[in-house]
Amino acid sequence: MLINHENMKYLAEIKVMPHKELLDPQGKAVNNGLHKMQLHAIENVRIGKNIELHLEAASKEDAENQTREACEKLLVNKIMEQYTYTLSPLDA
Amino acid sequence: MLINHENMKYLAEIKVMPHKELLDPQGKAVNNGLHKMQLHAIENVRIGKNIELHLEAASKEDAENQTREACEKLLVNKIMEQYTYTLSPLDA
Repeated sequence: MLINHENMKYLAEIKVMPHKELLDPQGKAVNNGLHKMQLHAIENVRIGKNIELHLEAASKEDAENQTREACEKLLVNKIMEQYTYTLSPLDA
Repeated sequence: MLINHENMKYLAEIKVMPHKELLDPQGKAVNNGLHKMQLHAIENVRIGKNIELHLEAASKEDAENQTREACEKLLVNKIMEQYTYTLSPLDA
């Protein structure tokens, strides 16, 4: 897409987590680590990614499309992971 | 701490991001990858962790203390990273 100065800037915050049905070995290891530190009341640790990015878009809809395209094509492995995102206007 | 059935269960969602002053090489690499996929309007990609865990606590304050202890002792490298968290009651 062309970038022009009439576009709005957005902040996208993307949360990528392992599917609930899947084991999360990294989360399990951290859970065990916390128990060894006497934090026994903690369970079900799951670890994913948090991705923040700035983007320019002609509209909120365009911003959503770009965010989804980035997620589906590069950021998220949909076999293993699911994602949610929020978009908010960015003050320039 | 002892776990008893009068405790409340909470969901903690912890967001760990590289400090704003630091370079984020992983984010930079992903930024370049997105540009190669014609997503040129995306900039300033930064990548951190999102950690979800369940915990039992006698009070919201106790839940906050446990969450902070887990972050400071294990989950977050405060030299490189900063964190924020939210706590919400978990329906059993």
